[in-house]
Amino acid sequence: MIGIGAGDPDQLSLQAAKAIGRTDLFFVLDKGAAKESMVELRRRMMKAYGRPSRRVVEGRDPDRDRTPADYQGTIADWRHRRSEVTEALISEHLLDDETGAFLVWGDPSLYDSTIAILDEILARGQTLFEYEVIPGISSVSTLAARHRIGLNRVGRAFQVTTGRRLTDEGWPAGVDDVIVMLDAQQAFTAHPDADIYWGAYLGTTDELLRSGRVADVADDILKTRAEAREQHGWIMDTYLLRRPD
Amino acid sequence: MIGIGAGDPDQLSLQAAKAIGRTDLFFVLDKGAAKESMVELRRRMMKAYGRPSRRVVEGRDPDRDRTPADYQGTIADWRHRRSEVTEALISEHLLDDETGAFLVWGDPSLYDSTIAILDEILARGQTLFEYEVIPGISSVSTLAARHRIGLNRVGRAFQVTTGRRLTDEGWPAGVDDVIVMLDAQQAFTAHPDADIYWGAYLGTTDELLRSGRVADVADDILKTRAEAREQHGWIMDTYLLRRPD
Ligand SMILES: C[S@@+](CC[C@H](N)C(=O)[O-])C[C@H]1O[C@@H](n2cnc3c(N)ncnc32)[C@H](O)[C@@H]1O
Ligand SMILES: C[S@@+](CC[C@H](N)C(=O)[O-])C[C@H]1O[C@@H](n2cnc3c(N)ncnc32)[C@H](O)[C@@H]1O
Repeated sequence: MIGIGAGDPDQLSLQAAKAIGRTDLFFVLDKGAAKESMVELRRRMMKAYGRPSRRVVEGRDPDRDRTPADYQGTIADWRHRRSEVTEALISEHLLDDETGAFLVWGDPSLYDSTIAILDEILARGQTLFEYEVIPGISSVSTLAARHRIGLNRVGRAFQVTTGRRLTDEGWPAGVDDVIVMLDAQQAFTAHPDADIYWGAYLGTTDELLRSGRVADVADDILKTRAEAREQHGWIMDTYLLRRPD
Repeated sequence: MIGIGAGDPDQLSLQAAKAIGRTDLFFVLDKGAAKESMVELRRRMMKAYGRPSRRVVEGRDPDRDRTPADYQGTIADWRHRRSEVTEALISEHLLDDETGAFLVWGDPSLYDSTIAILDEILARGQTLFEYEVIPGISSVSTLAARHRIGLNRVGRAFQVTTGRRLTDEGWPAGVDDVIVMLDAQQAFTAHPDADIYWGAYLGTTDELLRSGRVADVADDILKTRAEAREQHGWIMDTYLLRRPD
């Protein structure tokens, strides 16, 4: 499992590039037209660092309800179906003693289900393999780098959460710095007094950055986000909300 | 400012390697004998990816009280003195139109003061420069990768905090997953029912990993940590505490 960074091809680590070069078979789960450019980045990396003899198998990612009532149940079910699709690909295409690879967006430890999927396959006990995880540069590190900020303030804690949770539960207790991912509802608008550091398509040539007091910049972010989403057909954005000192 | 990863030379990103290759002058702040191997990793990277004509200046990192009563005040003061040392190095050694670089451990956005130091220098207005931050793979991503775990659970939040804070404030409100850095007091021992994923010298050949229920593995971690610290003269460790479902 290879973390490939959050959009910039040069965010790939040397370790990841070497692992791509050791891979016999790449697994690509197609996530539909919206994610075509994410698939494209992976193709580019395979071409640049992969062996000429490499093979690629593409699986169809099962559909899932994007706005379910029971979020965790829906994700667990989707993950389960995804593990079945993945297991079928592995057992059908990966030969004994070969090395397969999943190129995971950003860092595999952050809101990604590939580790859980492989563990679920191994737990079923039908398809056996060993695996290793190569960390990647996350969209969160990229956000901080592009805004030239730290995620924490001196000696303080920070929280990483989802847009859904920020909307449902409000500002988290005990922290003044909150990083928000997977936000389909622009949860930041409920916190006008916070400072926001926002980024979309981070690391790519389409990168968008905005920062300021939420009350001052929310309208601009909403407009920019809606227009970009319209233009590209998809958007990925992340932000840090910071309660001023 | 170049994030260099948390210990494995191959964690360097292609972007970071290229930036090293564009650098005329490297700034190295010596942190004393204990951190010699961290300085050594940087030297190795400069040698591997730097230009032959590169120069290196070393500054003496100001000392600081490691167990102060007023942690934030002490850090602010230390940061201020550090910014003066750094400013002197820049204005004395970096020529107009040259590019200088700081090789920052892990990811520059995580419990590192280099960004704040450069901003403080710029705010004084005497020494002018532009700077860019290149993200790196953090010790946190490395910890998760080596244990093959996600930092979050499905749709949930997690917190990143310090050992001091965990000791002083107890388990943070509203999260079941807590990543602890900068822990000089082994704060995990106060949480026997949590699961721990612990790692020291992550990414290096001296890497140590332990996991299990705190009640079961705390003694082993304490012993292993004390012995390793004794042997190497220093230790860097990080862990995830997870409240079981
Ligand atoms: C399923 S999560 C995967 C995160 C990924 N593993 C990482 O380390 O960044 C997808 C979320 O990550 C964030 N994200 C990923 N790539 C991004 C990018 N290039 N720019 C902005 N946000 C991004 C967005 O919040 C998006 O909703
Ligand atoms: C001053 S902070 C810097 C963190 C760094 N910027 C990063 O991204 O990992 C130092 C703390 O990071 C953690 N750390 C850094 N490198 C580590 C490693 N190789 N193994 C374990 N912990 C590490 C430890 O908790 C240590 O106390």
